[in-house]
Amino acid sequence: MAQRSNRERLDDLQIGGYRIWQDPALFCFGIDAVLLSAFVRVPEGARVCDLGTGNGVLLFLLAAKTQAASLTGLELAARPAELAEKSIETNGLKGRVSVVRGDLCEASAIFGEACFDAVVSNPPYRKPSDGRVSPVPERAMARHEVAMTLRELVRETARILKDGGSFFAVYPAMRREELESELRAAGLSPVRVREVRSFPEKPAHLILLEAVKGAGACVTEAPLVIYDAQGVYSAEVRAIYGGSV
Amino acid sequence: MAQRSNRERLDDLQIGGYRIWQDPALFCFGIDAVLLSAFVRVPEGARVCDLGTGNGVLLFLLAAKTQAASLTGLELAARPAELAEKSIETNGLKGRVSVVRGDLCEASAIFGEACFDAVVSNPPYRKPSDGRVSPVPERAMARHEVAMTLRELVRETARILKDGGSFFAVYPAMRREELESELRAAGLSPVRVREVRSFPEKPAHLILLEAVKGAGACVTEAPLVIYDAQGVYSAEVRAIYGGSV
Repeated sequence: MAQRSNRERLDDLQIGGYRIWQDPALFCFGIDAVLLSAFVRVPEGARVCDLGTGNGVLLFLLAAKTQAASLTGLELAARPAELAEKSIETNGLKGRVSVVRGDLCEASAIFGEACFDAVVSNPPYRKPSDGRVSPVPERAMARHEVAMTLRELVRETARILKDGGSFFAVYPAMRREELESELRAAGLSPVRVREVRSFPEKPAHLILLEAVKGAGACVTEAPLVIYDAQGVYSAEVRAIYGGSV
Repeated sequence: MAQRSNRERLDDLQIGGYRIWQDPALFCFGIDAVLLSAFVRVPEGARVCDLGTGNGVLLFLLAAKTQAASLTGLELAARPAELAEKSIETNGLKGRVSVVRGDLCEASAIFGEACFDAVVSNPPYRKPSDGRVSPVPERAMARHEVAMTLRELVRETARILKDGGSFFAVYPAMRREELESELRAAGLSPVRVREVRSFPEKPAHLILLEAVKGAGACVTEAPLVIYDAQGVYSAEVRAIYGGSV
């Protein structure tokens, strides 16, 4: 394993007032995690799991952006998991956010079956044969499928998700077909996809994808509530009417 | 047919500066259409069809809320169609919004097959046997399946939609299973549903539903573009970062 670095630093997440401990010698979060966090929609009170959470950036972004009741990260590498723990402490999120050290390939043995409303993941994008594998193990694991395969990620996701629960991932556009086919084979139905492009005329390099557990499954959004009290529209309905009611 | 009423009036839609001609002797738009308009997501440049447009309220709401290139309403009843025409004129929307007088059951003969990116509908909620049918024909047609059936609406929707195109409807929660089963039978896959409740603890009385043409189909959202220019993030990415980049 890489030596413990002294270069860890506390960065501002620019959302919810949260900060995150990162070690540039291992890796720092990038725009992919931020875009994924904006794509995720989970109902109030949801139990959310981040498979391969690294230093936990998705946990903190989702703690700020959603009303999830609990956010649990699973991470195999010791050092990123320690940084995530430290960020939980720094942000006062103990109780709502937690990190479990363990192997993603054993997620269902660790957490049990059908216990999460949503699973998120920013998995490694490359097979070990695709490009140079970093000599820094944490970096290698974050970028290449050296500790797990896409099939294993999908298999464990299907196991730990409740029926009707959603999986959200950011993934290379080049591997979209492979991802969708693995998902369908595991009983997860892709229901929403969004390409990410650098410029409008460029091809997509990433996709954001939501899949729901169940064949022919369908995203169930939070109920739309019309009234706060008799004759008093809810904030959402007032917003829909453009503030005119 | 009902006598031409002199009670028509010009109401403010409270969005996009648009106004709408309505005749209270026939019917006025309700919250259902407004909620549906907020649920609809269509890509920029989309061709949208509203089946059974009445006085065109959905056309005007969607003209304001979306970047659809064209919005076409189909309406059998003469008087509502005339009011919709008048509103198009009043709002200066000629060219972008139009109304065709004709039978929803013949939509594919009128427009052709696979020619719309999205179909929207706020169809009649009740079978003719369910409750008193209004003696005012326009009102009867808007509320009861006297001029069409759910099956015909779904059949024509499946025909006029392009592959991968979306159907958006508001419908009674009590008929949700029937709606979903008719959609699947016609090759439209429900992908997103949202209950509408008066109060959080009340059962849903309506649902908002999106279905996509194609088995196991999936909603494709507009691409997320990262940069406006080299090194300059797009407005959307800046919003995702909370305005800090």
